[in-house]
Amino acid sequence: MSLTRYYTATSLDGFIADPDATLDWLLTRDQDHGGVLNYGDFIAGVGAIAMGATTYRWVIDHEFSGKDPSEWTWPYDVPSWVFTRTAPPVVPGAPITFTADDVAAVHARMTQAAGGRDLWVVGGGDLAGQFADAGLLDEVIVYIAPLTLGAGAPLMPRRIELRLEELGRNREFACARYAVVRPAG
Amino acid sequence: MSLTRYYTATSLDGFIADPDATLDWLLTRDQDHGGVLNYGDFIAGVGAIAMGATTYRWVIDHEFSGKDPSEWTWPYDVPSWVFTRTAPPVVPGAPITFTADDVAAVHARMTQAAGGRDLWVVGGGDLAGQFADAGLLDEVIVYIAPLTLGAGAPLMPRRIELRLEELGRNREFACARYAVVRPAG
Repeated sequence: MSLTRYYTATSLDGFIADPDATLDWLLTRDQDHGGVLNYGDFIAGVGAIAMGATTYRWVIDHEFSGKDPSEWTWPYDVPSWVFTRTAPPVVPGAPITFTADDVAAVHARMTQAAGGRDLWVVGGGDLAGQFADAGLLDEVIVYIAPLTLGAGAPLMPRRIELRLEELGRNREFACARYAVVRPAG
Repeated sequence: MSLTRYYTATSLDGFIADPDATLDWLLTRDQDHGGVLNYGDFIAGVGAIAMGATTYRWVIDHEFSGKDPSEWTWPYDVPSWVFTRTAPPVVPGAPITFTADDVAAVHARMTQAAGGRDLWVVGGGDLAGQFADAGLLDEVIVYIAPLTLGAGAPLMPRRIELRLEELGRNREFACARYAVVRPAG
């Protein structure tokens, strides 16, 4: 049974990117890559990925900065869906589907492609919120970096009820796994 | 040696009050009043309190709702400073000083009044930020409630570097104590 999980890093005050869309506040941090709620264990269970247009653009701009498109290497092996209403740059050979369909329709396709593995909503916060609005988000997993940013891209621009399932420290990070609590009825 | 501590509850996405300034999302939660980073142990070490005008107004409106001012009971025994540029309602007999001075001057008076005990910055986020800007904030202690609010009053409208000192679970809450990291030099 696939779980749909929003796994992300955030500042203590709930921003997943700073106003300049840089991640230096995050990427400089110390973590144990075998520690609690680590990315390696997480990604091993993932069978399909979804991300929004801004997140995709960030990968293109930052991961591939200064490289010719022929050298771009998509960092994920599993089928990926990018929600966009425009035609962004294509990563050669990457298993990416661009879509403007609603999240419920795409979720069904992702579930089929994942073959029992989990679905990862990479971000941003509004896309994760759309999955939650549709009752299709099961978990929110956060790596909380030790700072406040004061402004930036919000973790989740919605009121969503959660239940704390797991909490642990990974060096500089407080790490928490929450179940999304669906409204009764 | 007094520590200046910002001790507060927050949503996972960094809001200390929702857009309607209600706290039902917080006050309904289960906690162990003898658990990690609990309020009782915390307040026992506090010798002076600071809060902003909005926080003070919230106490007046919500704690004293429907009561005649003669029945208002200020919930804190220690000297309290309220930062305000207007003349808010007075709680009879309460050890409150209204001030429009800057935080550094008030911090010196608070430290003297506290007699070696800690200073508590109750909130809001901007007042805590002003203490941090002045290099006078030592710790941020958060009770993270299991929800996102999506909007409201920000935990800390600043970029502030922190160091995770303590992390634990108190029933529904993830609780963390951070030291404020002052810029080198």
